[in-house]
Amino acid sequence: MNRSMIVYILGHVIRLEGVFMMLPCLVALYYKEQAGLYFIAVGAVCVLLGAVLTARKPKNHVFYLKEGCIATAFSWIFLSFFGCLPFVLSGEIPSFTDALFETISGFTTTGASILSDVEALSYSMLFWRSFTHWIGGMGVLVFLLAIIPLNGGSHINLMKAESPGPSVGKLVPKVKHTARILYIIYFALTIIEIIFLLAGRMPVFDALCTAFGTAGTGGFGIKNDSMMSYSPYIQWVVTIFMILFGVNFNAYYYIIFRNIKKALCMEEVRYYFLIIFASVGIIFVNLLDTAARAADSIRHAAFQVASIITTTGFSTVDFNLWTQTSKTVLVLLMFVGACAGSTGGGIKVSRFVVLVKTVGKELTSYLHPKGVKKIKIDGKPVEHEVVRAINVYFISFMIIFAASVFLISFEGKDLITNFTAVAATINNIGPGLEMVGPTQNFGVFGHFSKYVLMFDMLAGRLELFPLLVLFNPVLWKEFFKTKTRK
Amino acid sequence: MNRSMIVYILGHVIRLEGVFMMLPCLVALYYKEQAGLYFIAVGAVCVLLGAVLTARKPKNHVFYLKEGCIATAFSWIFLSFFGCLPFVLSGEIPSFTDALFETISGFTTTGASILSDVEALSYSMLFWRSFTHWIGGMGVLVFLLAIIPLNGGSHINLMKAESPGPSVGKLVPKVKHTARILYIIYFALTIIEIIFLLAGRMPVFDALCTAFGTAGTGGFGIKNDSMMSYSPYIQWVVTIFMILFGVNFNAYYYIIFRNIKKALCMEEVRYYFLIIFASVGIIFVNLLDTAARAADSIRHAAFQVASIITTTGFSTVDFNLWTQTSKTVLVLLMFVGACAGSTGGGIKVSRFVVLVKTVGKELTSYLHPKGVKKIKIDGKPVEHEVVRAINVYFISFMIIFAASVFLISFEGKDLITNFTAVAATINNIGPGLEMVGPTQNFGVFGHFSKYVLMFDMLAGRLELFPLLVLFNPVLWKEFFKTKTRK
Repeated sequence: MNRSMIVYILGHVIRLEGVFMMLPCLVALYYKEQAGLYFIAVGAVCVLLGAVLTARKPKNHVFYLKEGCIATAFSWIFLSFFGCLPFVLSGEIPSFTDALFETISGFTTTGASILSDVEALSYSMLFWRSFTHWIGGMGVLVFLLAIIPLNGGSHINLMKAESPGPSVGKLVPKVKHTARILYIIYFALTIIEIIFLLAGRMPVFDALCTAFGTAGTGGFGIKNDSMMSYSPYIQWVVTIFMILFGVNFNAYYYIIFRNIKKALCMEEVRYYFLIIFASVGIIFVNLLDTAARAADSIRHAAFQVASIITTTGFSTVDFNLWTQTSKTVLVLLMFVGACAGSTGGGIKVSRFVVLVKTVGKELTSYLHPKGVKKIKIDGKPVEHEVVRAINVYFISFMIIFAASVFLISFEGKDLITNFTAVAATINNIGPGLEMVGPTQNFGVFGHFSKYVLMFDMLAGRLELFPLLVLFNPVLWKEFFKTKTRK
Repeated sequence: MNRSMIVYILGHVIRLEGVFMMLPCLVALYYKEQAGLYFIAVGAVCVLLGAVLTARKPKNHVFYLKEGCIATAFSWIFLSFFGCLPFVLSGEIPSFTDALFETISGFTTTGASILSDVEALSYSMLFWRSFTHWIGGMGVLVFLLAIIPLNGGSHINLMKAESPGPSVGKLVPKVKHTARILYIIYFALTIIEIIFLLAGRMPVFDALCTAFGTAGTGGFGIKNDSMMSYSPYIQWVVTIFMILFGVNFNAYYYIIFRNIKKALCMEEVRYYFLIIFASVGIIFVNLLDTAARAADSIRHAAFQVASIITTTGFSTVDFNLWTQTSKTVLVLLMFVGACAGSTGGGIKVSRFVVLVKTVGKELTSYLHPKGVKKIKIDGKPVEHEVVRAINVYFISFMIIFAASVFLISFEGKDLITNFTAVAATINNIGPGLEMVGPTQNFGVFGHFSKYVLMFDMLAGRLELFPLLVLFNPVLWKEFFKTKTRK
């Protein structure tokens, strides 16, 4: 086990977080808020600690998937720990558990909040809260890979552990360059959204925070009513950008550098848009029955569908009051999630495409046991290993899901609250139904349940296995072996 | 496609049903009920039709899995169709849809009823209703295999299509003998239960119907309050026999013919009992908090857990009123189901054992990508093909589940009703929660939803694929080809 390398990476992550904390400091300076001091204090500690940990460059650069998992899991745990300190120290979220929940929810781009009154937070805190979405969306390790010089060839293992989706497609041969391209696209799209929001006369601060929340598909609002009180124009802009950030980023790469045709041929992206259109259609018809104006219905339907399938979690309406069909569609979308290689969560469209094709293949095998062909995606056969990994992912997901629902059921809340609370956290969405509906918050849960849900958020964001392997005692036996073996 | 063989088997099944209908005739005779006439009429039609279809013995005995699936699926559809006619003709269940629902629920051993007043049925109808459980429990084709002389070696395909569980273990080399042994054990256990029930002073008629419902893990009660008004002794007898019928029948075979040690070593059976004890424990503690007497609490906890995990569906208490934790445990048990090779439904304990081990294996592979061993059950490695089939089963199950919940959501019932209605039918249990709770019935659903749930019951009982392949157009193209190819 290459411990020195893990420590080195953790050091970089913590230092980077310290640097990121200078941004809310600037906000505090602008608004003349005392809260900025806490960011300076925690940021300084992070930078110092990071400097200590990265002081000794590791000699051995060999880095396997297991090291990648440990580095990733602990990066996210440390990020959340240090990230929540300003909330606690400033007293704006006095409970450590609550602050940690809020920060994990931020970094994992869940957007589930324990705050009943968001507007009571200071500007710098609100900014930091939304900015965690932006950091977590594309991933902090991916950012690290883009900027720091890490030699050795196995850094794809870091990216594998942090990136959403069943398989990591390197856009270009070098991991470093792939990471850079992803961040450039991410940054550019965020800027474009901010411009569109400002064009709709949104205040600059609101535009920044909203763009961070959309880009990371996070969903923390800075208003108590999420996006309800913004103009239809702004709601449409957010709708479109949520959908855009849920697209596999490879598509953008193809559009920019190669040809649009290849982007249009991506099966996952096509199914993604198909599911969105079908869902908006069903809910639109459903809303027309109950509510009045078509323009409002289509806007609300599109916004909520985009928000849930991309796992953002903003809302323009209390969809807990919608009809059963609409609610069922939303609950199903919670599990579908966005495209792989996007900033969205959930099980991912590509995994579902493979799962459905697996079932089709099985049915064919009943007719012609010997004439069964490999599953194809985008015309290319999917490797057996990938199919197997997707199956196991789905199974693990369901087991963790069931276990979580069981664990939080001890609080005695109704089944829909529990079910959708877990669905909304493990899929990194944010709001669920009933007591965790869009106008409610997760503050209703007790400490134990909050930790269960925090685990779900991290498990969902890191796609289960990097977090689950930490519970394997064999890993720790190897970790604490005195001699580092190759 | 060997059409003549399929027709031949269907003929036998229909004739057999005609013969079975003589039993409710005897009941009608005893109670001097006019309803017996309808059984004579329908029974005669079945015997005649069966005689016509089996008149020409097929020359070609070659029989693949696809023929096995078609024969099985249509056997069950015809069984249900003819089985519901007495209800309709006698006017005791006037609606054809309702009668079909009730009969499918009977044969698939679901036990979900559309009747609000069960006690209004005549004795012969109640008897037939419960007897369908007994027929469906071990399977009508398995019965057929045990009694009719079918030559040719591929009849394992019929058994494969009808028997519950991921793999069919032939106890003895010949399918015919395996089928006989299974039915002898089934018959003997039923008789023993009847004796125990009679010893508790249960009326003979009640004892017969209750034993049929327990043996098939069906759950149709003959009282409006299911088993609530029977004595604690009878409730305990039913509890124990439900659990016994949920055990893999191979265990009994080992106990009788070989050695008890082998039966005790069966991993599935051990996990089955472990899950039962754990669930009873949790619910017992939960009930003690709210209700009063320990004796009652343990009895109710044990009865309900046994009823749900074995997918029987009897109840001694309205568990819809229990605490959330207890209800969550029951909902989770709905999916676990009984052992493979028992009369119970659900996903089956053995499948879950394999699924959990698959996840464990995946976690190990993150540490040692090259040192991963095969999954073992009972000390023997599980074939890759079986693991794959289980994964695909689980995925297909979830897809059908989600689609069904979506389809019945159009009625506007609450999510828990819809969710548990589908869970209770696809797992062949019977009662769910809320509007389909133990004191409620499925009559609340409209026609469309009833057909969706009927599909779920059949799909659950036949373990999905024999029914799903019917939707593959390639199958029908082959079926209607003029020349029968080998």
